[in-house]
Amino acid sequence: MTQPYVRLNKDDAAVLLVDHQAGLLSLVRDIDPDTFRNNILALADLARYFQLPTVLTTSFETGPNGPLMSELKETFPDAPYIARPGQINAWDNGEFVQAIKATGKKQLIIAGIVTEVCVAFPTLSALEEGYEVFVVTDASGTFNAFTRDSAWQRMAAAGAQLMTWFGVACELHRDWRNDVEGLGTLFANHIPDYRNLMNSFASMQAAK
Amino acid sequence: MTQPYVRLNKDDAAVLLVDHQAGLLSLVRDIDPDTFRNNILALADLARYFQLPTVLTTSFETGPNGPLMSELKETFPDAPYIARPGQINAWDNGEFVQAIKATGKKQLIIAGIVTEVCVAFPTLSALEEGYEVFVVTDASGTFNAFTRDSAWQRMAAAGAQLMTWFGVACELHRDWRNDVEGLGTLFANHIPDYRNLMNSFASMQAAK
Amino acid sequence: MTQPYVRLNKDDAAVLLVDHQAGLLSLVRDIDPDTFRNNILALADLARYFQLPTVLTTSFETGPNGPLMSELKETFPDAPYIARPGQINAWDNGEFVQAIKATGKKQLIIAGIVTEVCVAFPTLSALEEGYEVFVVTDASGTFNAFTRDSAWQRMAAAGAQLMTWFGVACELHRDWRNDVEGLGTLFANHIPDYRNLMNSFASMQAAK
Amino acid sequence: MTQPYVRLNKDDAAVLLVDHQAGLLSLVRDIDPDTFRNNILALADLARYFQLPTVLTTSFETGPNGPLMSELKETFPDAPYIARPGQINAWDNGEFVQAIKATGKKQLIIAGIVTEVCVAFPTLSALEEGYEVFVVTDASGTFNAFTRDSAWQRMAAAGAQLMTWFGVACELHRDWRNDVEGLGTLFANHIPDYRNLMNSFASMQAAK
Amino acid sequence: MTQPYVRLNKDDAAVLLVDHQAGLLSLVRDIDPDTFRNNILALADLARYFQLPTVLTTSFETGPNGPLMSELKETFPDAPYIARPGQINAWDNGEFVQAIKATGKKQLIIAGIVTEVCVAFPTLSALEEGYEVFVVTDASGTFNAFTRDSAWQRMAAAGAQLMTWFGVACELHRDWRNDVEGLGTLFANHIPDYRNLMNSFASMQAAK
Amino acid sequence: MTQPYVRLNKDDAAVLLVDHQAGLLSLVRDIDPDTFRNNILALADLARYFQLPTVLTTSFETGPNGPLMSELKETFPDAPYIARPGQINAWDNGEFVQAIKATGKKQLIIAGIVTEVCVAFPTLSALEEGYEVFVVTDASGTFNAFTRDSAWQRMAAAGAQLMTWFGVACELHRDWRNDVEGLGTLFANHIPDYRNLMNSFASMQAAK
Amino acid sequence: MTQPYVRLNKDDAAVLLVDHQAGLLSLVRDIDPDTFRNNILALADLARYFQLPTVLTTSFETGPNGPLMSELKETFPDAPYIARPGQINAWDNGEFVQAIKATGKKQLIIAGIVTEVCVAFPTLSALEEGYEVFVVTDASGTFNAFTRDSAWQRMAAAGAQLMTWFGVACELHRDWRNDVEGLGTLFANHIPDYRNLMNSFASMQAAK
Amino acid sequence: MTQPYVRLNKDDAAVLLVDHQAGLLSLVRDIDPDTFRNNILALADLARYFQLPTVLTTSFETGPNGPLMSELKETFPDAPYIARPGQINAWDNGEFVQAIKATGKKQLIIAGIVTEVCVAFPTLSALEEGYEVFVVTDASGTFNAFTRDSAWQRMAAAGAQLMTWFGVACELHRDWRNDVEGLGTLFANHIPDYRNLMNSFASMQAAK
Repeated sequence: MTQPYVRLNKDDAAVLLVDHQAGLLSLVRDIDPDTFRNNILALADLARYFQLPTVLTTSFETGPNGPLMSELKETFPDAPYIARPGQINAWDNGEFVQAIKATGKKQLIIAGIVTEVCVAFPTLSALEEGYEVFVVTDASGTFNAFTRDSAWQRMAAAGAQLMTWFGVACELHRDWRNDVEGLGTLFANHIPDYRNLMNSFASMQAAK
Repeated sequence: MTQPYVRLNKDDAAVLLVDHQAGLLSLVRDIDPDTFRNNILALADLARYFQLPTVLTTSFETGPNGPLMSELKETFPDAPYIARPGQINAWDNGEFVQAIKATGKKQLIIAGIVTEVCVAFPTLSALEEGYEVFVVTDASGTFNAFTRDSAWQRMAAAGAQLMTWFGVACELHRDWRNDVEGLGTLFANHIPDYRNLMNSFASMQAAK
Repeated sequence: MTQPYVRLNKDDAAVLLVDHQAGLLSLVRDIDPDTFRNNILALADLARYFQLPTVLTTSFETGPNGPLMSELKETFPDAPYIARPGQINAWDNGEFVQAIKATGKKQLIIAGIVTEVCVAFPTLSALEEGYEVFVVTDASGTFNAFTRDSAWQRMAAAGAQLMTWFGVACELHRDWRNDVEGLGTLFANHIPDYRNLMNSFASMQAAK
Repeated sequence: MTQPYVRLNKDDAAVLLVDHQAGLLSLVRDIDPDTFRNNILALADLARYFQLPTVLTTSFETGPNGPLMSELKETFPDAPYIARPGQINAWDNGEFVQAIKATGKKQLIIAGIVTEVCVAFPTLSALEEGYEVFVVTDASGTFNAFTRDSAWQRMAAAGAQLMTWFGVACELHRDWRNDVEGLGTLFANHIPDYRNLMNSFASMQAAK
Repeated sequence: MTQPYVRLNKDDAAVLLVDHQAGLLSLVRDIDPDTFRNNILALADLARYFQLPTVLTTSFETGPNGPLMSELKETFPDAPYIARPGQINAWDNGEFVQAIKATGKKQLIIAGIVTEVCVAFPTLSALEEGYEVFVVTDASGTFNAFTRDSAWQRMAAAGAQLMTWFGVACELHRDWRNDVEGLGTLFANHIPDYRNLMNSFASMQAAK
Repeated sequence: MTQPYVRLNKDDAAVLLVDHQAGLLSLVRDIDPDTFRNNILALADLARYFQLPTVLTTSFETGPNGPLMSELKETFPDAPYIARPGQINAWDNGEFVQAIKATGKKQLIIAGIVTEVCVAFPTLSALEEGYEVFVVTDASGTFNAFTRDSAWQRMAAAGAQLMTWFGVACELHRDWRNDVEGLGTLFANHIPDYRNLMNSFASMQAAK
Repeated sequence: MTQPYVRLNKDDAAVLLVDHQAGLLSLVRDIDPDTFRNNILALADLARYFQLPTVLTTSFETGPNGPLMSELKETFPDAPYIARPGQINAWDNGEFVQAIKATGKKQLIIAGIVTEVCVAFPTLSALEEGYEVFVVTDASGTFNAFTRDSAWQRMAAAGAQLMTWFGVACELHRDWRNDVEGLGTLFANHIPDYRNLMNSFASMQAAK
Repeated sequence: MTQPYVRLNKDDAAVLLVDHQAGLLSLVRDIDPDTFRNNILALADLARYFQLPTVLTTSFETGPNGPLMSELKETFPDAPYIARPGQINAWDNGEFVQAIKATGKKQLIIAGIVTEVCVAFPTLSALEEGYEVFVVTDASGTFNAFTRDSAWQRMAAAGAQLMTWFGVACELHRDWRNDVEGLGTLFANHIPDYRNLMNSFASMQAAK
C-alpha cells in the first residue's frame, strides 16, 4: 500500500538537466537566487563527481528563454545536448529520450525550470515508462510556492521521489570511506555552514 | 499503487469556472488580489485560446455574493451560464452537469471561489463519476492558507490533479511550433517576468 | 487507488469536541487566538444549527488544563459531557465511545486541542472502527505549524478527510434554499468579510 | 523636532520615473511581479490623470538593463526622456536635473528600480537641494526586503516622505467631488478589491 | 532631541473613528479580518468605557464604500457623525474639525481605513495644528504591510505616537484599582488568551 | 487503501538517535535553535522516562561533524553507542542494526540530523525490513524547509508515521493515571506554556 | 541631531524585570515560547553575573496574571520585590521608583510583559526623569509583531536604546580577558549554537 | 532636523571587516547562508576593486570563534589584520583604531558578525569620534531578525547610514563610464539575476 524504498545507486543513475536557461532563471521566485544558483551548480558537480551520465536540454535557447547557464556547458562538455525545437515536455523529443535510453540507466535524477512544466512533464512521462524518478526539488524552480506545492503533489502522487541535491549525493556515496576528501570538497564548495566546520577543524588541526 | 499520468489533451478538455463573483472575491485571502485576478483572467484567456468548451456558473448573484467578474462574461459570451438558484455544490445542479455532459469531454479543468467548497465539492463529485479532474489551484482562492491546504489534501486524496494555469497551458499546447506567437502572447499578457524577457529580446532584435 | 467521495450528510453526522479547555487554549500557537476562538464557536454554532448530536469531553478539567470554554457548555447544555479521568486518547474512554455509539451516526466531525494528540488519536481509533472521520482543522490547534503538518499527514494517510468549519457547513447544508437566512446568519456571525458583504447589500436594498 | 506636514499639491508636483527597464525588473524580488507591475502602471496613470509633469530616465537601455517598459513610453509620449550615458545617480546627469527644473515644481514624486540606488540617490540629492521628496515605495523595487528596509531608513532619515501610489493619488485629489468618476476609474483599474466593490454596487443599482 | 513622554489622560482625550465602512473593510489585507474586527470593536468599547468623546465619520457611505460598521453606530448613538460629502482628508471637512474642537480635548486617539490615507492625512493635519495624536495602529488597516510600513514611518516622523488599543486602554486606566472588574471585562471580551486566564482563575476560585 | 492505525506501545518501542552532533547542529536551519535543542532533550527525557531501549550513533565524530551532544551521552550512559566509521545510512552499519535487533522491538522512534539523510535513509531501510517507523519530526532538523518538506513526503509515502515528541509521549503514556507527576514533570520541563499553567495552578492551590 | 553613544557600564546599571508572570507569559505571541523563556533567563543570569542591582515587580500576582516565574525569584532572592497593588505603569508605584533610586544607578536595563505597556510605560517615565534606558527587546514580549513594532517605535522616538540580552552582556563585559570562562559559560548556557562551538572546540582540544 | 546627504566617496572611504570568522558564521540566522556568504565576498571584492584601504580584525580566532574566512585573508594579503586579544568592541583596541587612522579616511564602511555587537559597538564609537559610518547591513549577520531590527534602530538613531553592498558599490562608482567592464564583472559575480541578464545579452550579441 505504500511505496517501496527505491534507493539511488550510482551505477543505475543518470542526470537530466532541463532548461536551466538564463532567461527562464529570471522567472524563478520560489527560492532565493543565490541559493538556487548554488543548488544547480551543486547538482552539476555531484553528477560529474559520481560520473553519472548527464543529459542537457534547452527550450528555444535563441529566443527570450536565453542560453543555457554557461557553467553547465563547461561542466559537461561532452554530454548529449538537445536544443529542443519546440516540444515543451522534453520527453516528447525523441532525441532526448534516445539520449536517456543510451545511458542504459533506469534511475533518473531530474531538475529544471519551471518545476510544474519542464520538470513535472518529463517526470510523469518517465514514470509512465517504468523509470524510477528522483526529482531534485531544490535545483528546480518556479514562479511561486503556490505553484511549486501543486507540482510536488502531482509528481509525488505519480510515484516520483522528492529529494534535494544533498540527499542525492549522500544516497549515491553510501559510505564516506569511499572518498572522504572528494565528498568533503563537494560539500565545502556548496554548503557554507559545512565549509565553516571544515575550516575550523582544519585550523585546529594545524594548531596542534 | 501510484496514480497514472493522465495528461491534458485539448480535444478532451472542458473548463469550469465556478463562482468567480465580485462579492466572493473579497473573501479570498490566501493569494494576493493582483495575482489572483491575473490568474483568473489567464485561465480564461487560455480557455479561449485553446477553444475549450467552458461552463460558467454563479451562486446567488443577485445577493451579497455579487455579479460574475465582468471580464468572464465578456470572454465567454456564448458559454453556458448557470446562475444556480441555491445548490452549493454546482454538481447538484442538473443544468450544470448537463452543460458539462453536452461538451462531450472527459477532462475537467476547474477553478473557483472558495476552494474548499465551490471547487472541492464539484471536483469530488466529478471524480466519483469518472471524470479526470484538474484543479487550477492558482485561479482558485479561499479564506486562508490553513483552509486551502486542507482542501488540497482532500481533493488530491480523491484523485484530482493539482495544477496551475501555466502548467495547464503548457500541457495543452504540447509544442511551441503549434503557434509560437499565440502562446507567447498569452504568457506576455499574464507573466510580467516573461513579458520583460520578450521585450528585451525584441528590443535587441530591433537593434540589429 | 484513490479515496472515494464520502460526503457529509446531516442525518449521518455527529460532532466531537475534544478538550477545548481554557488552559490548553494557551498552548495553541499555530493559529491566531482571535481566529481560533471564532472558528471553535462557529463549529459549535453550526452543530447546533444543523441539530447534530454533539459530544463534549475534557481532560483533567480541575487541574492546569482548566475548564471547558464556557460558551461550549452554554451552547450544548444537554450534550453528553465526559470529563475523562485520565485517558489521553478519548477513544480509550468507554463512556465517550458509548456516547458516540448512542448517536447512531457513522460520520464523525471532530476538533480539539492539541491536534496531534486529542484530535489525531481518536481520529485514528474511529477510522480503525470504520467510522468516516472529518477533521475540522481550523477548529483544532497545537504548538506550531511544524507539529500540525505532521499530524495532518498522519491523519490523512489513515483516511481522515481534512476540512474546515466553513466547508463542513456548506457540505451539510447542500442548498441555500433549505434556509437562506439561517445559513447567512451563521456566516455573518463568524466571517467578518461575509458580514460586510451582507451589510453593504442590506444597506443598498434599504436605499431603494 | 519633528517633520512638518508637507502635503502634496497637484500644482506643485512632478513625477520622476527612474529606470523601470525590462532587464532591471527581473532583479526585483521584494514585491510580487504582478503587484509591482500594477503599481508602476497605477503611478503612471495617476501622473497622467493629474497632468503632472513627468520625467523619464533610463540607464544603459541598449545593454542588459533592457528597454523602458513600453507602457511608460506610451503613457508619456511627450515627456522628457533622458537615456543616461552612464551616471548611476540620475541627479548627476545635468539633462535630468534640467528637465526637473524646467517643470518649475518643488515637490518630486519619485519611483524606480532599484530602490537603494536609482531611487535613493536622486532622492538624497534632491532633498539636499531643497526639494520636497515623496518616495512611492510600492512602485519601487529591489533585491530583497533586507535591502529595501535599509534604503527606506536612509531616505526617511534624510527627510523623504515614504508614500504609496494610492496615498499619492488621494493626497493630490483632495476631494472626491473634484471628479468622482475619474478617480473611481483609476482605482477600479488598479485595485481589484475596489473594482469588485464598484461592480457589486453597479450591479445593484442596475437591479433597482 | 527626542520626543517627550506625552501620556494619554482620560480627561484630555477624544477618539476619532474614520471610515470603518463595510466596503472599505474588504480592502484591508495587512491584518487578519477576525483580529481586525475585534480590534475595532475593542477600541469602540474602551472609548465608551472611559467615556471619551468620540467622533464618527464616513466617506461616500451610499456608494461602494458601504455603510459604517453597524456596531459602531450602536455603540455611539449620540456621537457626532459626519458623513463627508467628498473630502478625503477628514480634516478638510469643517464639520469634522468643529466636532473635534467641540470636545475641548487636546489628545486625539485615531483609527481608520485605510491607514495611509484616512488615518495618516488627518493625523498629519492634527499634529500641524498642535494636537497630540495617538494612532491606534491595530484598529487601522490597509492594503498590505508594504503600504502600512510606509504610512507608519510618515506619521511617526511627524510626531504621532503609534499605539495599539490595549496600550491605549492601559495608559488611560492608570491603576487597576480604579475599576478592576470594568477593565477586566473589557480585556476578557477582546483578548481570548486573557479570557482563558480569567476563566481558569474563576474556576479554581469556585472550586475552593 | 489507507494506512491502518499503528499505535505506539511502550513495550514494543525503541528509540534511535542519529547524528545529533555539535557540528551538524550548526547545519540545521529549518527550526529555531532554542526550540530544536529543547525538542531533542525532550525526546531523550521521554525515552528515559518510558525506559525505552535507545540506540545512539554518530558519524565521524572526531572530524568536523563534532562530538555527540553531551546531554545525550549523559542521559544514556549505558545505551549502545555506534560511532560509525563511514556509513552514511546508519542501517548500512551492521553494528547499528544489530543493536536495534537486540532490543527485540518492532516499533522504531527515530530522530536525527539531517532529516533527508540521517533520518530518511534508515527510516526507509527499516520500513523495508518490516519495522513500524515513527519519525520525530521536531527532533530532526535540516538545511531549510524546502528540503524538509521533500524529505517528509518521501518518508510518508514509504509508510513512515510523522509525529512530534509530544505526540509520542502521549501515545506511549495512554492514561495520565499511570503517573500524573512523571508526565507532568516531563511536560513542564520542556513546554514553557505548560509550565506556566502548572505554576499558576500550584500557586492558587497554595493560596487556598 | 542624532543620539549620542550612551554606553552601558556595569558600575552604572541596574536591571528592572517587570511582570514576567506565569499568566501573562501566555499572552506573548510575538516570539517563540522556548526562545522567550531562554532570553528571560539569560537576562537574569547576566544580571547576576555582572552583579547588577535588580528590581523585580509584578502586577496582581494573586489573580489571573499568576505568580512571577519561579526561576526569577530563585535567581534574585534578596532583590527588592514590589508586588504592585494596581498601578499599571510600574513607575507610578512609589516603592518601585524608590527601589530604583536606592540602587544609585543612572542606566536602567528593562524588560517585561507586555512590551507596549509594562515595558514602554516605565521606559517613557524613566527617560522623562533623565535616566538612560536600555530596553531588552528579546526578553520582552507581547501579543503580536504588529503591536511590538508600534511599541518599539514609540520608545525609540523617546530616546530609549533598543538592545537584546546578548548585546547587553557584551557591552557590559567590554573585554573577554576580564573573565573568559564566566562569559563563555553564560553564552553556552543560553546560545545552543555557541554551546556547540565550544563543545566541538573542547572535544578537539581533548583529542590532542 | 534631518540628516544631510553624506555621500560615499572612493577617495574618502575605508572598509572595516569585523569578525567574519568560521565559528561565528554558524551563529548567523537572520539571513540565508548562501546569500550571506555571497554578500561578504561581494563586499570584499568591491573593496579591492575600488582599492579602498581595508582593515581586518578577529576575536579569539584560536578558540571556538574559529579562523577568519579564508577568502578574506586571500583577498587582502597586505591589509592590517588585528587579532584582538579580548576587546569585544574593536574600537577599544588601540591597534585597530590606529590602523583606521593610518588610512587617513573619514568615511568608514563596516560589516561584521554579530550585528548588534561587532558591528554596532565600533559603529557607535566611530560616530562619536566624528567619522561618517556606513553599515553594510547585508554583509552583517546575527541571531535573528528580532535582534537585527533592534540593532539597526540603535545605529540609525546614532547617525549611521544603513546601506547594502550593492548600494555602496554604486555610490562609489558614480558613473558606469568610469569602467563598465569592471563594475559589470563585480555584479555578474555576485548577482545571479544580473549575470543572467548579461549572459542573455552576450548571447544575442554573438548571434548577430
